Amino acid sequence: MLFVELIRKKRDGGELSRDEIEFIVSGYTRSEIPDYQMSAFLMAAVLRGLSRAETAALTNAMLNSGRVLDFSAIAGSKVDKHSTGGVGDKTSLIVAPVVAAGGVNVPMISGRGLGHTGGTLDKLEAIPGFNVHLELDEFRRILGKIGCAMTGQSEELAPADKKLYALRDVTGTVESPSLICASIMSKKLAEGIDGLVLDVKTGSGAFMKEAKESELLARLMVETGECMGKKMVALITDMDQPLGRCIGNALEVVECVEVLRGRFAGSEDLVELTVELCGWMFLLGGRTAGVDEGRALALEIIRSGKALQKFRELVCEQGGDARSVDDFTLLPSAAHRQEVQATASGYVSAMECERMGMAGVMLGGGRVTKDDVIDAAVGIVLHKKVGDAVSAGEALCTVHYNSVERFAEARPVISAAYSIGANKPRARKLIQKVIQGRSV
Amino acid sequence: MLFVELIRKKRDGGELSRDEIEFIVSGYTRSEIPDYQMSAFLMAAVLRGLSRAETAALTNAMLNSGRVLDFSAIAGSKVDKHSTGGVGDKTSLIVAPVVAAGGVNVPMISGRGLGHTGGTLDKLEAIPGFNVHLELDEFRRILGKIGCAMTGQSEELAPADKKLYALRDVTGTVESPSLICASIMSKKLAEGIDGLVLDVKTGSGAFMKEAKESELLARLMVETGECMGKKMVALITDMDQPLGRCIGNALEVVECVEVLRGRFAGSEDLVELTVELCGWMFLLGGRTAGVDEGRALALEIIRSGKALQKFRELVCEQGGDARSVDDFTLLPSAAHRQEVQATASGYVSAMECERMGMAGVMLGGGRVTKDDVIDAAVGIVLHKKVGDAVSAGEALCTVHYNSVERFAEARPVISAAYSIGANKPRARKLIQKVIQGRSV
Repeated sequence: MLFVELIRKKRDGGELSRDEIEFIVSGYTRSEIPDYQMSAFLMAAVLRGLSRAETAALTNAMLNSGRVLDFSAIAGSKVDKHSTGGVGDKTSLIVAPVVAAGGVNVPMISGRGLGHTGGTLDKLEAIPGFNVHLELDEFRRILGKIGCAMTGQSEELAPADKKLYALRDVTGTVESPSLICASIMSKKLAEGIDGLVLDVKTGSGAFMKEAKESELLARLMVETGECMGKKMVALITDMDQPLGRCIGNALEVVECVEVLRGRFAGSEDLVELTVELCGWMFLLGGRTAGVDEGRALALEIIRSGKALQKFRELVCEQGGDARSVDDFTLLPSAAHRQEVQATASGYVSAMECERMGMAGVMLGGGRVTKDDVIDAAVGIVLHKKVGDAVSAGEALCTVHYNSVERFAEARPVISAAYSIGANKPRARKLIQKVIQGRSV
Repeated sequence: MLFVELIRKKRDGGELSRDEIEFIVSGYTRSEIPDYQMSAFLMAAVLRGLSRAETAALTNAMLNSGRVLDFSAIAGSKVDKHSTGGVGDKTSLIVAPVVAAGGVNVPMISGRGLGHTGGTLDKLEAIPGFNVHLELDEFRRILGKIGCAMTGQSEELAPADKKLYALRDVTGTVESPSLICASIMSKKLAEGIDGLVLDVKTGSGAFMKEAKESELLARLMVETGECMGKKMVALITDMDQPLGRCIGNALEVVECVEVLRGRFAGSEDLVELTVELCGWMFLLGGRTAGVDEGRALALEIIRSGKALQKFRELVCEQGGDARSVDDFTLLPSAAHRQEVQATASGYVSAMECERMGMAGVMLGGGRVTKDDVIDAAVGIVLHKKVGDAVSAGEALCTVHYNSVERFAEARPVISAAYSIGANKPRARKLIQKVIQGRSV
């Protein structure tokens, strides 16, 4: 098989066979196919598209480029959730202990923040001592012991994805539903799970700004996961404003712990989404017969204190200082705080969510390039969100910062991200759509 | 300027500015842009297309990636012709001496054969001692002395094209009218010419099999050349069967010398095309007021013996053995000859021209890869062409070969390339269309 012929086939709109896709992925992973050929192929795939069969074959080939975990020795079902990324999206830190406390295992492999979106690993690392670089054996041990474990991407899982993603990032070939689907699903399916709940974001803070695109990606992922024998659900959820009331790694840990403690005030949207995700995870894990029952179970577990206790166990098992769960003064804290005030009276009519995320990056809380060092203490606490009434001079949010220069840069961005109008805007639904796999 | 942003712009169907294209070409030529980004860009350009302005900017940037020759010190106009390549296409060897003998300078930079098509340099090298690797100073000296000179591509001219072509060849990004136009025109315009006649082939032996594609490319090249202030004409010519009666490097030299000697029998199509090309070159060079007059002048120069004398001078100046022009026994000659006979009676209804070219390659007369060594002696002399009447058992052609194994491989291909039918086929026009630039 000559790779250049396969490039031409895709360029001319042809459909590649399972064997041809396997040839491409294994050849590229072993560096037998050079980057300069692969990037031409990727561009042809972006512009010509991949069929559902090609997408499934690509996902499968990428999945099999490395180890596939097998947790069958651990009793009970294993379910994970994956979010396409947003601003203030911290559900993983709540979902994992809640679902594990409910008796469904959660083997969670997460990523770091890049650009305007945050990452679960960065949030966890705000907890002193928390180790997100678990060896696979240690990951398995913790999962078996407490029912959940959270770690970073292992080099052993789906290595093709790592190599492909680095190339896509610099060749303008990220934006393809099929390539995004294969990237996400190959990693998630390598986790050895029985079911997966996808949280596909849509709106100004999401990678996919349009609901139509988000839904297309969601359906593709659900179908691809089903082809591989997994129970699948995708939620299309709103990311037109930050989720919850905190943006910034340590601040988001605090918000999560408050929610786990049953203190929901100001975090209603975060609670709603988290409970929804947990509900579906309980259903997929066979713990409840329906999603309503699943949601009720999630709330009950939080209110009982079992979820918070599970979170303490998780922190402890992964080397973190569990005292910080009960004493926030042990978490990183910024030297300065300053409010950003409304310049007019009325209602918050919109928040440019991506700008808000970028303001967090400007403060030092996120990365522009992969190698940037982040400051866990900085961030933004939102006092007003879309639909809230404000008076001129009233605080919209409080900025936590360490560098005066960085604050000076971020402040106008934060201010401009808020739109204030005379009328109360129509509320957007947080959970816009649920796409269930046929086997659910 | 970030190259990845320009890749995305082209991917999304945007039009790049002159500056952006200049940035890409100069960055790539200096190896500041890596191959893996360039190939993604090229694929986007193939699938999204380039506008006329982008094509002109690309041609200009590639032209300016190296030296641009200036022959203004040499008196008289300078005109070249370029063919997109075919089988038995040997016009350059006749055109250059005819036009030079008529008083218009021909600075001709040619290529080698690849795949089923032949190359002018390979044909010239069939002449013992003929040097096709002239330094630019020597090229200039010969051009100034005798009015024509023929050499291979210099590393100094349009180096971007060499680098880009090597990448396109292995990434499935050859087939784009704009990229082909920029590749051809950047090299030709670097020759320091005032006018250019393009011979764009169409049919089974051409790279572009469809007349529509050939015409699109021809118009693009004419417009691009005009943008650069050159006088331009493109002929769309038939390549649905080999041109003339010989295929093979030494055999083609013999055919050219016979035509230059005024012996046209069996080479009528070659003579017709050559005279047409010369006619336009005389017009573009300001030597004649019209193309009819130009054609007549070409025939007169051949009949006077001046063209043959100019060819002798050319051979002599470029280190070749000029005696071989008058004594073909000094040219390479194959050890064996064998006829291929018609298996049925009727008319030759078609010849699969690309197959015929590949048969020549199988005999050893061409290259499959750039590094193949070729045998100048081997080839095929055609006795029958499309429209000729044949009887079963009559010779269709004579194969000249050195290797019995290679002949055994090529023979069935040659036989299969001929189609014999009961009725005389309708003749295809050799010169199908003339596309004149506005300034001609």
